[in-house]
Amino acid sequence: MTHQQPAAAYIRHGQTPFFRLPFANLTADGVAHYEGVDAVLMGVPWDGGTTYRPGARLAPWEVRRASAHVQSLHAEMPLDVFATIHAVDGGNTALTPFSAPFMRDVVEREVRAIVDAGAVPFLVGGDHSIALPSLRAVHARHGALAVVHVDAHLDESGPETWGEAFHHGTPIGHAIREGLVARGALHQVGIRATRSHPEEGSLAASHDARRYSMDELQDRGVLAVAQRIRAAVRDLPTYITFDVDGVDPAYAPGTGTPVPGGLSAREALRLIRALAGVRLVGMDVVEVCPDLDVGDATSTLAAHLLYEGLAVLASRTRL
Amino acid sequence: MTHQQPAAAYIRHGQTPFFRLPFANLTADGVAHYEGVDAVLMGVPWDGGTTYRPGARLAPWEVRRASAHVQSLHAEMPLDVFATIHAVDGGNTALTPFSAPFMRDVVEREVRAIVDAGAVPFLVGGDHSIALPSLRAVHARHGALAVVHVDAHLDESGPETWGEAFHHGTPIGHAIREGLVARGALHQVGIRATRSHPEEGSLAASHDARRYSMDELQDRGVLAVAQRIRAAVRDLPTYITFDVDGVDPAYAPGTGTPVPGGLSAREALRLIRALAGVRLVGMDVVEVCPDLDVGDATSTLAAHLLYEGLAVLASRTRL
Amino acid sequence: MTHQQPAAAYIRHGQTPFFRLPFANLTADGVAHYEGVDAVLMGVPWDGGTTYRPGARLAPWEVRRASAHVQSLHAEMPLDVFATIHAVDGGNTALTPFSAPFMRDVVEREVRAIVDAGAVPFLVGGDHSIALPSLRAVHARHGALAVVHVDAHLDESGPETWGEAFHHGTPIGHAIREGLVARGALHQVGIRATRSHPEEGSLAASHDARRYSMDELQDRGVLAVAQRIRAAVRDLPTYITFDVDGVDPAYAPGTGTPVPGGLSAREALRLIRALAGVRLVGMDVVEVCPDLDVGDATSTLAAHLLYEGLAVLASRTRL
Amino acid sequence: MTHQQPAAAYIRHGQTPFFRLPFANLTADGVAHYEGVDAVLMGVPWDGGTTYRPGARLAPWEVRRASAHVQSLHAEMPLDVFATIHAVDGGNTALTPFSAPFMRDVVEREVRAIVDAGAVPFLVGGDHSIALPSLRAVHARHGALAVVHVDAHLDESGPETWGEAFHHGTPIGHAIREGLVARGALHQVGIRATRSHPEEGSLAASHDARRYSMDELQDRGVLAVAQRIRAAVRDLPTYITFDVDGVDPAYAPGTGTPVPGGLSAREALRLIRALAGVRLVGMDVVEVCPDLDVGDATSTLAAHLLYEGLAVLASRTRL
Amino acid sequence: MTHQQPAAAYIRHGQTPFFRLPFANLTADGVAHYEGVDAVLMGVPWDGGTTYRPGARLAPWEVRRASAHVQSLHAEMPLDVFATIHAVDGGNTALTPFSAPFMRDVVEREVRAIVDAGAVPFLVGGDHSIALPSLRAVHARHGALAVVHVDAHLDESGPETWGEAFHHGTPIGHAIREGLVARGALHQVGIRATRSHPEEGSLAASHDARRYSMDELQDRGVLAVAQRIRAAVRDLPTYITFDVDGVDPAYAPGTGTPVPGGLSAREALRLIRALAGVRLVGMDVVEVCPDLDVGDATSTLAAHLLYEGLAVLASRTRL
Amino acid sequence: MTHQQPAAAYIRHGQTPFFRLPFANLTADGVAHYEGVDAVLMGVPWDGGTTYRPGARLAPWEVRRASAHVQSLHAEMPLDVFATIHAVDGGNTALTPFSAPFMRDVVEREVRAIVDAGAVPFLVGGDHSIALPSLRAVHARHGALAVVHVDAHLDESGPETWGEAFHHGTPIGHAIREGLVARGALHQVGIRATRSHPEEGSLAASHDARRYSMDELQDRGVLAVAQRIRAAVRDLPTYITFDVDGVDPAYAPGTGTPVPGGLSAREALRLIRALAGVRLVGMDVVEVCPDLDVGDATSTLAAHLLYEGLAVLASRTRL
Repeated sequence: MTHQQPAAAYIRHGQTPFFRLPFANLTADGVAHYEGVDAVLMGVPWDGGTTYRPGARLAPWEVRRASAHVQSLHAEMPLDVFATIHAVDGGNTALTPFSAPFMRDVVEREVRAIVDAGAVPFLVGGDHSIALPSLRAVHARHGALAVVHVDAHLDESGPETWGEAFHHGTPIGHAIREGLVARGALHQVGIRATRSHPEEGSLAASHDARRYSMDELQDRGVLAVAQRIRAAVRDLPTYITFDVDGVDPAYAPGTGTPVPGGLSAREALRLIRALAGVRLVGMDVVEVCPDLDVGDATSTLAAHLLYEGLAVLASRTRL
Repeated sequence: MTHQQPAAAYIRHGQTPFFRLPFANLTADGVAHYEGVDAVLMGVPWDGGTTYRPGARLAPWEVRRASAHVQSLHAEMPLDVFATIHAVDGGNTALTPFSAPFMRDVVEREVRAIVDAGAVPFLVGGDHSIALPSLRAVHARHGALAVVHVDAHLDESGPETWGEAFHHGTPIGHAIREGLVARGALHQVGIRATRSHPEEGSLAASHDARRYSMDELQDRGVLAVAQRIRAAVRDLPTYITFDVDGVDPAYAPGTGTPVPGGLSAREALRLIRALAGVRLVGMDVVEVCPDLDVGDATSTLAAHLLYEGLAVLASRTRL
Repeated sequence: MTHQQPAAAYIRHGQTPFFRLPFANLTADGVAHYEGVDAVLMGVPWDGGTTYRPGARLAPWEVRRASAHVQSLHAEMPLDVFATIHAVDGGNTALTPFSAPFMRDVVEREVRAIVDAGAVPFLVGGDHSIALPSLRAVHARHGALAVVHVDAHLDESGPETWGEAFHHGTPIGHAIREGLVARGALHQVGIRATRSHPEEGSLAASHDARRYSMDELQDRGVLAVAQRIRAAVRDLPTYITFDVDGVDPAYAPGTGTPVPGGLSAREALRLIRALAGVRLVGMDVVEVCPDLDVGDATSTLAAHLLYEGLAVLASRTRL
Repeated sequence: MTHQQPAAAYIRHGQTPFFRLPFANLTADGVAHYEGVDAVLMGVPWDGGTTYRPGARLAPWEVRRASAHVQSLHAEMPLDVFATIHAVDGGNTALTPFSAPFMRDVVEREVRAIVDAGAVPFLVGGDHSIALPSLRAVHARHGALAVVHVDAHLDESGPETWGEAFHHGTPIGHAIREGLVARGALHQVGIRATRSHPEEGSLAASHDARRYSMDELQDRGVLAVAQRIRAAVRDLPTYITFDVDGVDPAYAPGTGTPVPGGLSAREALRLIRALAGVRLVGMDVVEVCPDLDVGDATSTLAAHLLYEGLAVLASRTRL
Repeated sequence: MTHQQPAAAYIRHGQTPFFRLPFANLTADGVAHYEGVDAVLMGVPWDGGTTYRPGARLAPWEVRRASAHVQSLHAEMPLDVFATIHAVDGGNTALTPFSAPFMRDVVEREVRAIVDAGAVPFLVGGDHSIALPSLRAVHARHGALAVVHVDAHLDESGPETWGEAFHHGTPIGHAIREGLVARGALHQVGIRATRSHPEEGSLAASHDARRYSMDELQDRGVLAVAQRIRAAVRDLPTYITFDVDGVDPAYAPGTGTPVPGGLSAREALRLIRALAGVRLVGMDVVEVCPDLDVGDATSTLAAHLLYEGLAVLASRTRL
Repeated sequence: MTHQQPAAAYIRHGQTPFFRLPFANLTADGVAHYEGVDAVLMGVPWDGGTTYRPGARLAPWEVRRASAHVQSLHAEMPLDVFATIHAVDGGNTALTPFSAPFMRDVVEREVRAIVDAGAVPFLVGGDHSIALPSLRAVHARHGALAVVHVDAHLDESGPETWGEAFHHGTPIGHAIREGLVARGALHQVGIRATRSHPEEGSLAASHDARRYSMDELQDRGVLAVAQRIRAAVRDLPTYITFDVDGVDPAYAPGTGTPVPGGLSAREALRLIRALAGVRLVGMDVVEVCPDLDVGDATSTLAAHLLYEGLAVLASRTRL
């Protein structure tokens, strides 16, 4: 039995939880309970780490709305996602727009609550700086992680450009330096932005990261790339951090720092789908900017990317 | 004490009830309870009565989202609306897009439940054909009504153009013929659309309706018009049916049959506000089409029009 | 009996003539016949005279589409426009985008054919440079004209800025110098653009033109201004040249050189309407740029401005 | 000699027939005559079967306008389409927005008139519910059909979700049950939407339909898929029903229920093109929603899809 | 002689300085020199104080581009603005998006450099939190200021909602508490947003501020309000802080927290214009969000508001 | 050392030169100096040759703004573009919108100045008619050219359609007839528009041009096509003329005559990139129409196409 509300009930309630799922129970002071839950969808309305066009703080509401049109049964494999796993909408992290340290504390605490309950967090950003506290919390539970990083950018910048150590161009760098990522277990797809400093990328490289260039992806095909990643991560606890600007702006126009030449939506969905069987311990989809979106295209894509991640979880749960 | 959630709780919950109000309690089969409630906001996701550009079915969700930014305290009068009245979000009527008779039954039944509990319904359309069952239900409780009708169109068409007796151009005609409107108590503002049949308008005229032409409104000013209406309705139970195309498309672009030359947003808000003291028994705001909207302008205006209606109710409650 | 097609026939035919009127009969080589016709709507798809954002060449098709929703009966006066006058869609002038002299020849010839048949031309630009050949043709038939010029700009520039004597900022200057405008009979409304040369405006002034500044319009009201114009033009043959940028960009966003602070749509419509009774011999509505429009707002306004002009013609015809 | 009007004549007439073709002759009561005609383009302005975002009723006018820029000569094969076949614009079906049974009657009757005259219908929706009466009429003339169904959705839903047997998610189911589709001759491409009921798809499967999943299409390539379909349909009378949401929203944003991960425009065009030689007896392109479109992209794509269908017809005619 | 570049030179250079003015000379380390300059236009690309929709950081570039179309000669008064005063483009403050204290330091220092050179600063925000350091710097030079504050919001919030003392809803409160505003010399126009705390507004009231409600403005007219302000400020050094959300969203859609019912563009421009003769010592126009704008309407309005402010300065300089 | 300004300096200056490069020195009368310069970016604000939707005149400013986000280091190859070559922003050609012969003279003269200084011109249109004078000037310096022509259209039209020998559909035809293109050295990619005259394409064919059809490109892959071109041009002086409508409208919506089914952004970028090593002597990117663009997608793509061209130049310079 699926955990989704049927359409009529969804319309009647007038609410828009992620994927028409039940909301988690919140206590009066906003603490959630996740007993018996496999997956928690949670919004992180934060864009205080954005270097160019902001607006990702508004994504959680829009992705909720777009996700209402995703059903439980997968089109490419025999899988009834929301009957196989028990997923809930955990609400949003309670943030103000102003303090990055506070954001990091809250996100880390909320994700800890999810993983400590044995559930898998699926975060909906927000800008990419939310990934660092999420990785910290997941790492605290599961140890050094394999990370599948889809992005147009390397995200290992230092403070040299903006005088700030933590912003949306830095989470991967911090994660490596903090030991959250297992050596040789960082897989980067979609990277294609020009760089301003030659040392960008060297940190990941020195950590034996594997970067699949766009030319390589085009030449090999996305399935082969996914299979390589799948083979490499084996049974490591695996975290997917998906910046929607990894996808080409034609498919994901609603994002703040678009770079032409990225993955198609089809490739992006296939990339996640082909990871079925990995030991997924967390996922985030970040950098959706609704005010820049066109007809909900990016929010809808984000909802489908999350669905594919949930299907990865379900595919393993089912086994 | 206001009944609105504070901003932090609103963000945390990730839901978007009208005006950040509590949702009404629904039983498992979708029946709502309104004990002790003064006002119920309810969405009616219906546009099956639209003759030109459809899309109003999607308005309830967008008006909810826009209304989150309206606070309790009025800017022009000393009134703490959501502390004075107890208002709730009653969800939406549970409709399919396909059957107009079913829509009329459901809306009439839901509004009856509201008025029978002693509360005042504030409906968020949907197209204007939802007004008829709402008027029927309110009439069943309160008897013949004064109706303030803001619209670019007369809405008393017969079946001659579209071969259909009930659509969004007909509710006022039906309401008059069904005796829902007290003689001499229909007040029409904003009417300016060209007509295709000379008899359009004659039904209202024969019922001693008062139409305030746009030229008259411009010459007298909106305050004088509102004061005339206020004086005329005295203590009749009064229903406001507000088609957002009564407002000029510059202020309300998100609507299906725009006509240039309408009220400004300021005039529209003032018109409602100046009705403070009337015995308001129901209100609807209809014809918001989110897909045609520009930056939520029309949804935001609709939220403020509803707020002014709630303030009218509060202003009387307070006395 | 109205000359408009009913809605069902309009839908069936799949064509979009102006105001659902019949198309004029064209011979195989594109010559139109206007026997017994009172008014000819004609598109002029030309924007080769645009100094900033082009695109007005596409307006005739969009204004046709928007005009389908205008009915025959006026909302503010007892007038059945398309039953009172016989109006037809004369098609467009057959232009290429490249030659301004060719455009001027074609427009002048087509308008001559209209006025020579005793009909009144209503041109839908195109940029404002189409007004000059139209004025020439109307002048050839009717002599020196009263001209009601609604615009944000003076349109009497010389070649000093762009090295070109004829562009969309010049038609009024040429018309004065060519003697097409009767002395003291040029009435300019909406003018508010900053100027780069102090002599701009001096030609009109030396011709005893009357300019109603925006401050004056706001202080007196549009009705008083219209009544002054009405009184001044007496029974002179009168031509209305209406640049939609005379209207504020909030109401007419689809135009190439918008200037904030203009007329509201309501004022613009009232201005034309209040000219009822003048001897209208021609009208153009220019500078609608569909690619810059928002939800057809500007095309729809243009259609209503033309309708008010047709009503002016009908109001006199009826007498 | 092509049947298209040259550009100058098109501009002069100010009308926008499909592909600048002649309009069919309509009698005074709206009956068309198709003697000697090979193909009839017809608009079906209906969206009363839409479950989510409506608006497809407006597509016929926009696709007409977009199609004006398609010329007669094919870029990939030596084919002068509008010289090879005699195609006309048959106008639209004369519908109101309110009655689905009436729509089905009218569409079936109009398509019957086309096929009975020996011509091939090319319908421009409207939502997908128009396909059923079209298939009925074509079946009545040609018997059981091969159907190439491009869509994101299976379109064999029953009444369980919306309490309605006929809507835009049902035409294929009805067509199978009514025996309009030859066993083993339904070819489905683009299907990728998640499903809410496990039995969706089982009807087609039990009818030996062939579904080409998106993963399969990506792995084999669109040409191979098209060649399989081409080989399978042999000389069966073949009908193409093309829901533009089969295409990825990046290429077809103007549609009501977009699903990411679909065909590219290039693949969609190639799919049709590669069917050259089949015995095409009808085609529809549905679910274009102009109000959701971006710069006419979807209308333009729809026009090109129709053109490729016309080229398929011409390619066989020529032989 | 105007200081503006002629159009041809503007096109040739390919740069977009404010109003086509010369850029100020910057030393290699970014220090500007303002000898002999009357007015400095400066962008402040900061939106780190935004509580809802961010994006104002991008305004300086867009307002520059829009301002290129403003000429030197005023339409309503005989004034050649850029010949009367020597104005330059001072570039932007060099900010990162992340540190509000750093922003306040930089803005205060840059404005000090302007006022210390005897010039008047015209800042282009940026969100409203940039006004505080600007007021501090101007106050340091000129002493307690008269402030004309146009806004939908009171902007005297405390830290209660967002846990932060300095954000875009707080500058007026800080300015009063810091003694930057002379008692009785704060004039607030456009205020109409609902409030969440009853004490909002009490600080201004206790400082004898004058608030002109929207109802009052509508009843008296904007000219009368402006004349009252003009009379009240006498010869006090006067600072105009103009939040574009004081204007109705129909005229200024590109802003983050729109509230319906505000000033028209015409009223806003007239309000500034009617202050001619005051001793203007600084001005800012804030909260323009280009990504939310429609056809540059808000950027263009902002440019014209700045122009009216420059005209106020010029009108006094000329005397 | 890169020649780009760092981000902070870029923000401080408030200017938007191409790629944050220095502006070329212009003398007071607008003459530029290019000593020691390898590449000159120059805007050509001209759209007087457009047959359908105009607006490309505005592209140079928008491409400048979009290009600010491109950094110096290439993502797919070890290349520091702006450290390897000395590139400058040469401003725009100083044009009026009205005279095509004047445009051709100015562009030819400006490009001559660039090539005569030993630098390579990179023009940013403007419509495609700017390519002819550019090719003339480059030919005058380098002799008969290899031309890589990316476009949806053949661009060898004669005067038969529009009565005009020079417009945006003609530059390749003129270039061939004038002997600017070496026999067998014209390579056309992306061509897919339907044609109205069978002789279109025959001129190129008779000149032994190589056209790669979209079907061929899809079947072989873009890399193989690029390698063929690379092999064919050997060491001929090579000019790339890139009409953005060669790219599919999903990736390049901001263009006036879009045709579905084109290159993806990824293919387009790879096509240029794979030409590394050719002797590049000039490049233009044309037909970007900002008013039709979506979120700067087309301007951003144009900037990246230019960057790839600059990288081709740098890759050879470096050797």
